[in-house]
Amino acid sequence: MSSLNGTTNGGMGVTENQTEFLDRLYTMMINDVFIGSRKREARVVNFKHPKELEKTIDLQLNEDETKDEDLLKICKDVIQYSVKTGHPRFFNQLFGGLDEYSLGGAWLTEVLNTSQYTFEVAPVFTLMEKTLLGKMLQLIGFTNGDAIFTPGGSIANMYALNVARFKQFPDVKRTGMQGLPHLCVLTSEKGHYSLKKGVALIGIGIDNLYSVKADSKGRMDPEDLEKMILKLQSENKRPYLVNATAGTTVLGVYDPLDKIADICKKYNLWMHVDGAWGGSAVLSKKMKYLMKGIERADSMTWNPHKMMGAPLQTAAFLTRHKDLLPQCHSANAQYLFQQDKFYDVSYDTGDKSIQCGRKIDCLKLWMMWKAKGDKGFEKDIDNLFDCAQYLAELAEKRDGFELIQKPECTNVCFWYIPPSLRGKERTADWWKSLAKVAPVIKERMTTNGTMLIGYQPDGERVNFFRMIVSNLEIVKKDMDFVIDEIDRLGKDL
Amino acid sequence: MSSLNGTTNGGMGVTENQTEFLDRLYTMMINDVFIGSRKREARVVNFKHPKELEKTIDLQLNEDETKDEDLLKICKDVIQYSVKTGHPRFFNQLFGGLDEYSLGGAWLTEVLNTSQYTFEVAPVFTLMEKTLLGKMLQLIGFTNGDAIFTPGGSIANMYALNVARFKQFPDVKRTGMQGLPHLCVLTSEKGHYSLKKGVALIGIGIDNLYSVKADSKGRMDPEDLEKMILKLQSENKRPYLVNATAGTTVLGVYDPLDKIADICKKYNLWMHVDGAWGGSAVLSKKMKYLMKGIERADSMTWNPHKMMGAPLQTAAFLTRHKDLLPQCHSANAQYLFQQDKFYDVSYDTGDKSIQCGRKIDCLKLWMMWKAKGDKGFEKDIDNLFDCAQYLAELAEKRDGFELIQKPECTNVCFWYIPPSLRGKERTADWWKSLAKVAPVIKERMTTNGTMLIGYQPDGERVNFFRMIVSNLEIVKKDMDFVIDEIDRLGKDL
Repeated sequence: MSSLNGTTNGGMGVTENQTEFLDRLYTMMINDVFIGSRKREARVVNFKHPKELEKTIDLQLNEDETKDEDLLKICKDVIQYSVKTGHPRFFNQLFGGLDEYSLGGAWLTEVLNTSQYTFEVAPVFTLMEKTLLGKMLQLIGFTNGDAIFTPGGSIANMYALNVARFKQFPDVKRTGMQGLPHLCVLTSEKGHYSLKKGVALIGIGIDNLYSVKADSKGRMDPEDLEKMILKLQSENKRPYLVNATAGTTVLGVYDPLDKIADICKKYNLWMHVDGAWGGSAVLSKKMKYLMKGIERADSMTWNPHKMMGAPLQTAAFLTRHKDLLPQCHSANAQYLFQQDKFYDVSYDTGDKSIQCGRKIDCLKLWMMWKAKGDKGFEKDIDNLFDCAQYLAELAEKRDGFELIQKPECTNVCFWYIPPSLRGKERTADWWKSLAKVAPVIKERMTTNGTMLIGYQPDGERVNFFRMIVSNLEIVKKDMDFVIDEIDRLGKDL
Repeated sequence: MSSLNGTTNGGMGVTENQTEFLDRLYTMMINDVFIGSRKREARVVNFKHPKELEKTIDLQLNEDETKDEDLLKICKDVIQYSVKTGHPRFFNQLFGGLDEYSLGGAWLTEVLNTSQYTFEVAPVFTLMEKTLLGKMLQLIGFTNGDAIFTPGGSIANMYALNVARFKQFPDVKRTGMQGLPHLCVLTSEKGHYSLKKGVALIGIGIDNLYSVKADSKGRMDPEDLEKMILKLQSENKRPYLVNATAGTTVLGVYDPLDKIADICKKYNLWMHVDGAWGGSAVLSKKMKYLMKGIERADSMTWNPHKMMGAPLQTAAFLTRHKDLLPQCHSANAQYLFQQDKFYDVSYDTGDKSIQCGRKIDCLKLWMMWKAKGDKGFEKDIDNLFDCAQYLAELAEKRDGFELIQKPECTNVCFWYIPPSLRGKERTADWWKSLAKVAPVIKERMTTNGTMLIGYQPDGERVNFFRMIVSNLEIVKKDMDFVIDEIDRLGKDL
C-alpha cells in the first residue's frame, strides 16, 4: 500500500521478528490445546488444589519485565493446568467443544479489537450481527422482532425483566419503581437462578419472584401458574412476567410453552422463554417440537455458546417487539451517537444496549454457521439428542445405574448406586450414604483426569450425576465410556 | 501422553491437516492486521456506506456449508473493511492499540474457552484474577477490598449503584424498592451516560439521577454538590451515592476526589469513582496526583481496555468493602456452587457476580502486565500524557486551531477554524458554520482513511474534535501528523 500521508515515519511500526512470541504461542495453542487436548486419551484436567496450584504457576506481577522465554513457559503452565473444555469428555457444564471455525472467528475478533456500538468503528460487525440475529429471529418465528447479543444468558434474562416492565409501565425509566404497583414475576421452581439475581438487581426483589410448582418431570405446571396469578392479583400484587424454561439447567425439561402462552395471553402477561440451553432444538426438524409455542412468546434467551458449540460468550436476547430495546435503553449520548454523521446513523445500534462498549460476539458464531450451514447444525444437534438418548438407554440397562427420568433435552441425570448399596432397603440412611457417592466419584474422575461430569441434589433428590451432551464431536462410544468409567471409579464404594 | 482409559478410539480426534484453515487464518491475521494494519502508511479504515458494504461482503447464512477457500476470502474482506483500531492513528475512542502480549492472552483465552464461575472449570484463571485484581486494589489503596471483572465499565458503574443501595438498605435484595425511601443519585453534568442507563435499569429512574454543576473546566463543583444534597434531603429525598469521575469522557477532567470524599463522609453517602478512562493514572508516579483521594472512595470502575491498552473487554469494579459483592449478589445455586466439593470452595467466586457464566477477562491484561512490569506500564502512561501535552501545545501555536482547554487527562479537545472563518466576528451564524466543520473533516478523514478522530458538541460548545491519546505506541510525530492532516483536510472550508 502506498503512503497515504506526507510524513516520513523513519521505520516506526512492527517488524517481522516482533511476531516471534505470537508464532511460538500459536504453535503451542495448536499442538497442546487444539490438537492435544481434544484427543480422547489426553487428560481433561490435571488437578491441583488451590494452594498447591498457587505454588506451581508463577502468577505474581512484578516491577520489572518478563522475558518472552519465561512468559511462554508460564503459558505452557496455564494450558497444562486449565480444564480442557474442548475435550470430548468434558461433560461438566452446558458448554464445551472446540470448533475450528468458531475458534478462528474468536481469534479474528480479538485481533480486530473493537466495540459493537457504532457502524463507525464496527462496520462489518454491525451488518453481521444484523444478519445473524435476523436468522435467529426467523428460526423462532419473531419475524418482525429485534435482538441483541448480551454478556451471557443471565443478563439476557435481565433484559427480559427490564423491557417487560418498561413495556407495561413506560414511566419506570424516568421515575423508577416509585408509585408503581407491587410488581412480581413468576418462574418455575426448576427455572434458572439468574431470575433471582435479575429481580434483585432491577429493584423488584427476590420475595416478589414466585415459584410455580413443577410436575413430577420438572415441567412448570400451568394450572399452578394460573392459580398463582389469581392469588397474587387477589392480594393486590401485579404479576407482569412469566419466565418459562426451554431446557432446564439440571433435568433438561421443556416447560409447556403453548399452555403457558395461553395463560399469558389471558392475563396479559409478558411471556419470556429462557431457552439459553435448550433453545437450539429449533435447529432440528426432528426436535423442534420441543419448542412448540415459542413463536407466541414475547422474548427469548438463547445461548449459542451452549448447545451450538460457539465459544463463550455468545448469548442473545430476542424479542418480538420491534423498537422496544432502544425505547427502553437509549440514553442518546451526544459524543457517541452524533446525529450529524455523514452515514445513515440508523446503523448505530449501541443505544439498544444497557452497555456502552460491547464486545463483538457475532463473528465466532457467524463463522461457524457460514462454514457448516443450517444443515450442518441440524446434523450436529440431532447427534447430540441421539447420544443423550443412547446414554439413557445404557443407564437403564446397566446394573447400578438409575435414571432420574427419560431425557427430553441432552441432560442425562442418573444415580450411580455402588455395589455395597445395591438391593438394600432405601431408608433415610441409605439415601444419606448415596448422597456421598457422587462427590467421591467426582473427586476421582477429576484427579484421574479422564472425564468431568457434574452432580447436584435437586429438591428431594440427593446428589446425582447430571451428564451434559453438548460437545458437537461426541459419539456414542463416549457414552459407553461414561458408564464404564463411573463404574470403574465407584465400584469399591 | 499414554492412554488414560480402557477404550480404543479408533483414530477419532483431530489430525494435523485439520489445522490448515486455522494456519492460513493465523498467517492472514498476522500479516494483514498485526503487522499490516499497524503501519502508519496503512489505511485506518476503508470506508463503505452500509448499503454498499452489504453488497460487498457475503454475509448471508445458507442451508449448505461453505468451503474453506471461500470462507478465508470472506475473512480477508472482514479484515479489509473493519476499522483498524490497532493502527497508531486510530484516535477515535477511549481504546485502541494492539499489544502482542495481550493479544496472545486474548487468543489463549479463546482456545481455553471456559467460564470464570468456579475453580472447578477455571483453576488457573481463578488464581490469576485474584492476583491481578489484588494488584489493582493495592494500587488504589483498597487494601482489604474486593473486586471483579465486569462486561464493560457501564456494568461496573451499575455494580456500584446496586451494591451501594444494598449496603444502605440490605432488605432491598429481598423486598425490592417497595417501602424504601425516595432514593436518588448524584453525578456531575459531565459524567458518563451509563449512570443514566444504570438508574433506569435498577429501578431508581432517570428523574432521580441529579446532575451536579461542573466548573468552567468541567470538574464537579463540590459546593453545588453539597447544596444539592441538602436540597434533596429537605425534599424528603434520599441521596445514597455520589458518582465522581476520574477522566471525563469528552474533556478528560478529574473531579476533585478529596473534596467529594469530605462531603460523602459528612453526609454518609457512598462515593463511587468512575475511573474507567482516567483511573490508569495511578500507574504513574508523576500523574497519580490526579487520583488523589481515590483511597477514600467506596468503589471504583477501572477499564484497563482503555488507557492500559488491553483488549476489549477488560473492565473492573473494585470496592473497599470486603464481602459486600457476595452478600449483595449471591443466589447460592446448588447445581454450580455445591458445598460438598472436594476442594476449598471459597475459591468458587462466581456468585459475587450478577452473571452466571462469565467470560475470562483476566488473562489478556495479566499477560501484558507480566511482560512489561509496573515500570513498563508507567513508561507507557507517562508517554501518553506527554504526547497529549505536546499536541495541546501544537494546537495552541498553530493558526486555525483553538484549544478548548489545557488537557488534564489524554483527551485533547479543540476546534479547527478553517481559513474562511478566521478573524471574523463570532456571531450565532459564525458558530453555526463552525459546527459544520468537524463533521465534514471527519467524513474526509474517514474516506481518506488516514486517521480517525471523534467530534461532538458539549453543552454550549458547538462540534469540536476530541482527540484521544490512548494507543501505547503513539509518538510525538503522530501528534504533528494530526495537526497537519486536519489542516490539509479542512483548509478549503
